[in-house]
Amino acid sequence: MDSDKIDIVTGGAGFIGKNLVERLAASDRRVLILDDLSRGGQDRVVTLVQDTRVHFRQVDCADADAMAEALTSVGGELGDVWHLAANSDIPAGVADPRIDLHRTFQTTFGVLELMKRAKGHTLRFASSSAIYGSFGDTAIFEDIGPLAPISNYGAMKLASEAQINAAVESYLPRAEVYRFPNVVGAPATHGVIFDFVNKLRATQDRLEVLGDGTQRKAYLHVDDLIAAMLHISTLDGRRLTFNIGPSDEGVTVRFIAETVRDRVSPKAAIAYGEGPRGWVGDVPTFRYSVQRLMDTGWKPSRSSAETIVRAIEEIVGPEPQV
Amino acid sequence: MDSDKIDIVTGGAGFIGKNLVERLAASDRRVLILDDLSRGGQDRVVTLVQDTRVHFRQVDCADADAMAEALTSVGGELGDVWHLAANSDIPAGVADPRIDLHRTFQTTFGVLELMKRAKGHTLRFASSSAIYGSFGDTAIFEDIGPLAPISNYGAMKLASEAQINAAVESYLPRAEVYRFPNVVGAPATHGVIFDFVNKLRATQDRLEVLGDGTQRKAYLHVDDLIAAMLHISTLDGRRLTFNIGPSDEGVTVRFIAETVRDRVSPKAAIAYGEGPRGWVGDVPTFRYSVQRLMDTGWKPSRSSAETIVRAIEEIVGPEPQV
Repeated sequence: MDSDKIDIVTGGAGFIGKNLVERLAASDRRVLILDDLSRGGQDRVVTLVQDTRVHFRQVDCADADAMAEALTSVGGELGDVWHLAANSDIPAGVADPRIDLHRTFQTTFGVLELMKRAKGHTLRFASSSAIYGSFGDTAIFEDIGPLAPISNYGAMKLASEAQINAAVESYLPRAEVYRFPNVVGAPATHGVIFDFVNKLRATQDRLEVLGDGTQRKAYLHVDDLIAAMLHISTLDGRRLTFNIGPSDEGVTVRFIAETVRDRVSPKAAIAYGEGPRGWVGDVPTFRYSVQRLMDTGWKPSRSSAETIVRAIEEIVGPEPQV
Repeated sequence: MDSDKIDIVTGGAGFIGKNLVERLAASDRRVLILDDLSRGGQDRVVTLVQDTRVHFRQVDCADADAMAEALTSVGGELGDVWHLAANSDIPAGVADPRIDLHRTFQTTFGVLELMKRAKGHTLRFASSSAIYGSFGDTAIFEDIGPLAPISNYGAMKLASEAQINAAVESYLPRAEVYRFPNVVGAPATHGVIFDFVNKLRATQDRLEVLGDGTQRKAYLHVDDLIAAMLHISTLDGRRLTFNIGPSDEGVTVRFIAETVRDRVSPKAAIAYGEGPRGWVGDVPTFRYSVQRLMDTGWKPSRSSAETIVRAIEEIVGPEPQV
């Protein structure tokens, strides 16, 4: 990595983006955040740009011209691109597929166009475990098939991966693809913990949960995610595709609901819905193999359960001293 | 299939489309061809609409509004959609990815939007063996992974499949996905035979071939493709994904070059290039499993070699009587 160059972080005003930008700036990289602020994040940007190495431009990352202009305006040669911009509101994408098309896929297309023109070196892409679809009890490793995403979000992440793959064949020197499941930590903007905390703060005696609580999922702390991304950036290769996640099989929604309840409003009753699936596009069980990444020497610092407990603390704030 | 309804064939002015529309009309179906004519086909449309059951509207299939209007204008309730529209010029898509984005992926997106609104039943999608990428000597069956398309064309076909899969999860009653390699027959508009015939007609004593001629590919006759599509339409299921192709391992470019040469200009010299790969996005070897389809009772009527010989006859015309 050449420290005179400027790295772009698309979606840098989001939850993962903010954490990543802080880490990059802390290792003395120049960073240009490109974000449309469609899901907010002004407060995070204000904090981030207090570091003089961090720049911000509000652009639509589907628009390669606008991004090229932004890059010129901050005066720098393009280094690598960390492409995190996407629509993170999965149900919204189910209701209107154009949201995922534009914010999740066309941003990738725009980023690739920018990198083709500006001769960027490595594209680091935040993909998703949602590209896989349902495999039931079968462990999901990177080369599994068939890939049958059940949400538009997953479909547009897979579409992005496909386009990136073709770009590596043609003009892109290197691509890193990170496939990860639910990521938690602060500053939370969405997700199950965030929802449960908000629900319990609104209605202190009752927590309603979609589905019967038996859905089991793997959770990754944002710190572990970023450590994995930085680790992968040191590995050799032209195309690197890695599952990133905890090495356990996850925790149930019931565990999360009870842990949030115990922390936020211990006397609340938890009311479960019916069936294992929370919403269209939700995958009820999920076994995720991170063996490929562990074989390169990485391991997550926390289990799913430890991640959940830690994230609840970060979101709710420290436990009051009695 | 309800014969009062009208089936849409996107890309119906193209090579495969023309053959399909003729078959559908011959079985007394009403057909609406939607095609942007970006690759020509006016002559084929003029022929097809002489059948009163066949209608044509020139529209961009990425535009759901335009397609809905076209459907209303011919007066009919939507039956099924045969989605064949795509950019068939692979090198053009490598040069400008926006061509594949628009014509291969956004047409799928538009078709899905139309089907969501007009409550179409089954989407029959002409996907491609290009979604798989290179597997060398490994036989490619439908559930293989990882999917790593090396052309933008393949990437946008995979993107289309992903979006269709998410639609089946949400609102689409049924989808059939046909993955096929090179299809030949008349009226040829592109492809290796077409190119060789045209080159030899222009320069009768010499045929230049990209690559060293050792590339081996499977070839399917358009009649066999359409027979397979109609066969699949009779099978049960909500998501049907099938490789369609010959059951052999294909023929070499050298075989095709020599067969065309012998038929068109027997004294011509054949000049081969270097290396096994013809152009960016070309896959040098390819083993294609059609076992899943054969297990349902279908088999191709011709081998790759028989298909090539037959297609050359159809393109060149009958051998002169001596």
